[in-house]
Amino acid sequence: MPYYSARVYITLRPSVLDPAGTAVRSGLAHLGHTQVNSIRIGKYIELSLEAENETTASQQVDRMCHQLLANPVIETYRFELEPLATPA
Amino acid sequence: MPYYSARVYITLRPSVLDPAGTAVRSGLAHLGHTQVNSIRIGKYIELSLEAENETTASQQVDRMCHQLLANPVIETYRFELEPLATPA
Repeated sequence: MPYYSARVYITLRPSVLDPAGTAVRSGLAHLGHTQVNSIRIGKYIELSLEAENETTASQQVDRMCHQLLANPVIETYRFELEPLATPA
Repeated sequence: MPYYSARVYITLRPSVLDPAGTAVRSGLAHLGHTQVNSIRIGKYIELSLEAENETTASQQVDRMCHQLLANPVIETYRFELEPLATPA
């Protein structure tokens, strides 16, 4: 079966407060980076998987995101799939 | 001054162990997703900043990554810059 690489981007929904982002923004300001207006912290996940075809791979990654990788109540996710020549 | 939006991707260096990734992989396997070969967890940061031009913005984001957002000893980072019409 072919291998695919997926890059998953998980971000907090815009309505959800991001205390870690606020802390980082204040940390940056203390270091002199006062030109930063907003900052939101999310997760970035790289995974490789085996699937029959790209459609199946996409469905599987979507299910993984929904079930475990993201919390759909407070987070949204998107991902990119790419065929891999060899397993990573 | 114009506004720029930056998307920062922070990943662990390949030589660094990723216990969180291993835990997530085992969690996915328990949910039936046994087709996952490898998984690495990183950070994804969206920020907007004010800068004179794209070169300055890029230098500033690079400095922020090096000083605070990433830990250069165990992590690598890359980022994309985009001009913004209005501040976010």
